[in-house]
Amino acid sequence: MSQSLQTAVVGVTGYAGAELARLLLHHPRLKAAPPVFAGRVDQKDEARGGIPLAEIHPQLAASNASGHLKIEPFSWELLARRGVEVLFLATPHEQSREWVPEALARGLRVIDLSGAWRLTDAANRAVYNFDDDGTELADAIQAQAVYGLPELHRARIASARLVANPGCYATSIILALKPLVAAGLVDLHHGIVADSKSGVSGAGKAPTAKTHFMYAADNLSAYAVFTHRHTGELLEQIGVESSQIVFTPHLLPIPRGILSTIYVHFREPQTAAAVARVYQEFFSASPMVRLYAKSLPQIQHSVHTSYADIGFQIAADGRRAVLVSCLDNLLKGASAQAVQNLNVMQGWPEAEGLE
Amino acid sequence: MSQSLQTAVVGVTGYAGAELARLLLHHPRLKAAPPVFAGRVDQKDEARGGIPLAEIHPQLAASNASGHLKIEPFSWELLARRGVEVLFLATPHEQSREWVPEALARGLRVIDLSGAWRLTDAANRAVYNFDDDGTELADAIQAQAVYGLPELHRARIASARLVANPGCYATSIILALKPLVAAGLVDLHHGIVADSKSGVSGAGKAPTAKTHFMYAADNLSAYAVFTHRHTGELLEQIGVESSQIVFTPHLLPIPRGILSTIYVHFREPQTAAAVARVYQEFFSASPMVRLYAKSLPQIQHSVHTSYADIGFQIAADGRRAVLVSCLDNLLKGASAQAVQNLNVMQGWPEAEGLE
Amino acid sequence: MSQSLQTAVVGVTGYAGAELARLLLHHPRLKAAPPVFAGRVDQKDEARGGIPLAEIHPQLAASNASGHLKIEPFSWELLARRGVEVLFLATPHEQSREWVPEALARGLRVIDLSGAWRLTDAANRAVYNFDDDGTELADAIQAQAVYGLPELHRARIASARLVANPGCYATSIILALKPLVAAGLVDLHHGIVADSKSGVSGAGKAPTAKTHFMYAADNLSAYAVFTHRHTGELLEQIGVESSQIVFTPHLLPIPRGILSTIYVHFREPQTAAAVARVYQEFFSASPMVRLYAKSLPQIQHSVHTSYADIGFQIAADGRRAVLVSCLDNLLKGASAQAVQNLNVMQGWPEAEGLE
Amino acid sequence: MSQSLQTAVVGVTGYAGAELARLLLHHPRLKAAPPVFAGRVDQKDEARGGIPLAEIHPQLAASNASGHLKIEPFSWELLARRGVEVLFLATPHEQSREWVPEALARGLRVIDLSGAWRLTDAANRAVYNFDDDGTELADAIQAQAVYGLPELHRARIASARLVANPGCYATSIILALKPLVAAGLVDLHHGIVADSKSGVSGAGKAPTAKTHFMYAADNLSAYAVFTHRHTGELLEQIGVESSQIVFTPHLLPIPRGILSTIYVHFREPQTAAAVARVYQEFFSASPMVRLYAKSLPQIQHSVHTSYADIGFQIAADGRRAVLVSCLDNLLKGASAQAVQNLNVMQGWPEAEGLE
Repeated sequence: MSQSLQTAVVGVTGYAGAELARLLLHHPRLKAAPPVFAGRVDQKDEARGGIPLAEIHPQLAASNASGHLKIEPFSWELLARRGVEVLFLATPHEQSREWVPEALARGLRVIDLSGAWRLTDAANRAVYNFDDDGTELADAIQAQAVYGLPELHRARIASARLVANPGCYATSIILALKPLVAAGLVDLHHGIVADSKSGVSGAGKAPTAKTHFMYAADNLSAYAVFTHRHTGELLEQIGVESSQIVFTPHLLPIPRGILSTIYVHFREPQTAAAVARVYQEFFSASPMVRLYAKSLPQIQHSVHTSYADIGFQIAADGRRAVLVSCLDNLLKGASAQAVQNLNVMQGWPEAEGLE
Repeated sequence: MSQSLQTAVVGVTGYAGAELARLLLHHPRLKAAPPVFAGRVDQKDEARGGIPLAEIHPQLAASNASGHLKIEPFSWELLARRGVEVLFLATPHEQSREWVPEALARGLRVIDLSGAWRLTDAANRAVYNFDDDGTELADAIQAQAVYGLPELHRARIASARLVANPGCYATSIILALKPLVAAGLVDLHHGIVADSKSGVSGAGKAPTAKTHFMYAADNLSAYAVFTHRHTGELLEQIGVESSQIVFTPHLLPIPRGILSTIYVHFREPQTAAAVARVYQEFFSASPMVRLYAKSLPQIQHSVHTSYADIGFQIAADGRRAVLVSCLDNLLKGASAQAVQNLNVMQGWPEAEGLE
Repeated sequence: MSQSLQTAVVGVTGYAGAELARLLLHHPRLKAAPPVFAGRVDQKDEARGGIPLAEIHPQLAASNASGHLKIEPFSWELLARRGVEVLFLATPHEQSREWVPEALARGLRVIDLSGAWRLTDAANRAVYNFDDDGTELADAIQAQAVYGLPELHRARIASARLVANPGCYATSIILALKPLVAAGLVDLHHGIVADSKSGVSGAGKAPTAKTHFMYAADNLSAYAVFTHRHTGELLEQIGVESSQIVFTPHLLPIPRGILSTIYVHFREPQTAAAVARVYQEFFSASPMVRLYAKSLPQIQHSVHTSYADIGFQIAADGRRAVLVSCLDNLLKGASAQAVQNLNVMQGWPEAEGLE
Repeated sequence: MSQSLQTAVVGVTGYAGAELARLLLHHPRLKAAPPVFAGRVDQKDEARGGIPLAEIHPQLAASNASGHLKIEPFSWELLARRGVEVLFLATPHEQSREWVPEALARGLRVIDLSGAWRLTDAANRAVYNFDDDGTELADAIQAQAVYGLPELHRARIASARLVANPGCYATSIILALKPLVAAGLVDLHHGIVADSKSGVSGAGKAPTAKTHFMYAADNLSAYAVFTHRHTGELLEQIGVESSQIVFTPHLLPIPRGILSTIYVHFREPQTAAAVARVYQEFFSASPMVRLYAKSLPQIQHSVHTSYADIGFQIAADGRRAVLVSCLDNLLKGASAQAVQNLNVMQGWPEAEGLE
């Protein structure tokens, strides 16, 4: 067991970045070497460096270590000098597209929290308008990227050099649907509906008309109907056609948490016991998924935890089911999933530092 | 124009009752005679009477009329003495089942806000377990009850003696779906999904584990999956089979407002313009529905108004649509709808006192 | 009674501006001529004009009048052509400093919602850094400005040409303190504490780090300690020295409403009855103040009303009191107060259009 | 270092109890023996026992230990059989009055989270109306109780057999005031004002009219003015007379967190540097207090941490100060403070298990 792994995080001033900093600072296998926190070059405050971490995230302030950590100006030389082996990017996808090639060329392993490298199908990637899409280099890098959902791709993640950490909405929907679709239970002809609701931290830290308190509070709104960027992840990971699923995100008036309500038709009538068994088998080796037997998960159960919570209810006719999936968008939907991927890559227990 | 109609409200201490009191007190046609506010006999505080309205609802207190109004102990004799012609019941459904026969026998017209008389099909009513269900008297009363959704039943409401004011969820879903189903656009074989989210006032004023601030705040939870009582209203009013629609209510961490996200498949590909035309024609004489042409309604747009707001988005293939329907559960979902029904019954302009 | 008064509002896209538009559109004395809504020249969207009011404030949309109203590009010529007599400015104070001289010169009466003309003492005004402070013109205009708190200055407002509508915090504190200080009850030597808490709409519509949902939600923060701009209004209107009062504003995680908790020492022991009498006499002709006899007001009682609510509690020793004052910062703290001032200026009933 | 200390908690279904369970389950010194969770005998569900902890607090559910823990029916025999040495009582004060004598007689050390044993002055205790107040036994027990604020009474807590864990409001106010009063800076003649605001979890888990979402949400209310039970703790711990301090609690529309805004006059003008030095010296050995040098703490910084956060601002005249003190009422205001007391009693590092 290596206790001296050196990690680095770029983008620690954002919401997911802050949670990632917190998790890494308390990770039992990383005690020997606190992460390097490097500033995003596109953010004046961060780029300058020198800011104490505790000033940006007062919750992290303490009498011990984290209180003295500072954000350092990013440079490849900094990472080299500090012996960084694993680089977390909590950066906008444009920046991840630009930096990942360089990072891999320098021998770093990368866990990228953005949408830059999640999609293998160029048609699905079109929504991002990547400048470099279709170039030989980009294709080569995409080819080695592994979609960082350990519950689906544990083995490939273990040996990956580039892990594309999933979207928060996508994680909540894929984990609930994949076991049932993979087991052949779902009648795709009828169409799947994924109605998702997310807290405001999912909209990012930039002050905009939509993140204004007066817009979000006491409100609920649907957005990006038929066009949300996470749709491609659903298609590729669940294995369905665009015509077979509708995904609608909504903005909830709460800081964090996602609840997805998912509607499926079964090919044959099912019992609750049979469906529960399918889930149990699928997740038998997955410590970060909690299955609800008698009740349904709620956002409150999942926030401030690193788990994805899944429950379901079956209609009296056995032919239709409502699946409910909850997680903390900043944890299992972002930073905790990134740490879970680190654990898998390092061969450490998958839940290490996440409970 | 009659300015001397005498109304009475039973159940004014609840959330919908308070809004009803406010609307009636400011209704231009009721200035001459403020409503009689009679206490629910099952609520000790109300039954005793004598409580100033302003004490129960401090928002209603003012230097004028409402400040001096008191809740009076209920009795049929009180209503007779005061010359009450129209009785609003903001009471539990059990009490409405018991009182409506007596009220009708005494010649009163009744607008009942409970679920007591909304359902014509005994199978749909089963969920309520009414003591008197199937008796000759109950059947006779149910036969003359009119479902109080003016946008669907304006003419019958005009001459009704008993109006069964619709459920709040049901109102939001029926108004969005009925025009498209009635026009034959919807492919019922694929199944309709109605995913609804409501503020906490919909759960009533009784302090329970689920209305505790700590349960509802920073949370979202699905409940009554496949079993909610409003389902029967959807089936009867939209005209679909139980197997053709799934309705899931959720509890939002906000005081008031409902947003329903509704998923349909079309029988033939549709354009947005065609769908908009169907809505415009259906609601051409309906002042309390606002159609959204370019954007989608949000809860914030609808709360503290008496309107139902409807918008939609169509998939690129023209075969699927997401309908979004918003209203204030205490207004268009309860009290304002009751006043709208009063207006229709009296032959007054339908939006009188509601803007 | 004039029913044809023509009003105009500049700055209708802000929160207070929207409420002002709503109040004026429903004001019984203004039915004949809806207000002119003129765009702020410093706001690109508004300046261009042509935007339907209903698009900016969907809550205002309806089947009637307001649905068709548009924001028009501001010009003095526009106001002249439309025969505007009373101009409401819901603009930043810099703009009000610039426009008021011109408006008065053109014979308009002005109700200014900003802080531009509230302070008579140059020392108190220093915090605003007005460019034109101390010029002859500015001094002349300031000399004729009347502080628009009708409960204190009713007679002067009636004949004013320029009314400086008070700050929201200042209104809540002055109304609770002035009667007791004026009656000589308060021992100023001990010092007064005014601890105020306001909803986020008070911070304005601009998206900033502090109006971000993630900053304000689930939070409470004190700000501008010892330095808030409304302090000067307290000193001038209550008649106390800077050393005799401390005012601390806090940002509440709610959309609207202010609660001020105010601590005073009495010169002589007082009974609750004596203090209540002082308030009753002071506000005997003030329809927009509600006095609480047995309990304390709460924010929930005051929001969405045009009232200021005042209650108090006296210590067992009779020597100290806690005053609690609530109002809706957008209504009695801004727009409803502006309409109240209009009513006073026009000789209309003071509460007209406000209940 | 003992790693085999056996603890027990009674009252784990409440909000503070749940946090206490979480902290103890993750405490590094208690890994060898998870706490015994015993049900409150006055709560039917708990008394019966057998309920999995994860069912009551789904957030605690996991693939490991806590998932299998159950609440056991309370009996003294149970505690004896399991070798419990330290008993945490998260019970109503009546129950703590009754149980503590028995627990001490049986040789247990007790950390009581209720108000049962915090007050040494009978006059201050009067507000609780204890049945047994003034009996010889109660006096004897009160005499050995130590007020469990380690920052004030570290040495006495170390050897205490009964620790009376402080009230949440009291903790926030005492920590901010005590250093300044003890250093002789504060002019008590002018009177201190402590204006406190707390999230709803402070009001307990019982569903009541005041904990209903509709009461607390979008609201702020002052309560127990001049009469709150924590006042006695302020008087005894800070060392002031009842006439020298006013304490007003308010109910905030958030789940957790307390912010106290405290107003003091100084005997002599002070500089910020001098005041900061007083705090630094007072808390030099206190790892659970974070002093703010340049800004003020906010509730958001403190919730979900075990720290008390303290900042201040001084008026230009140096004679008056506003102190701002924040903490999580369930952590530093209850459960984390209890664990901090355990650490002190055991001679462990004071912050163990709290970061």
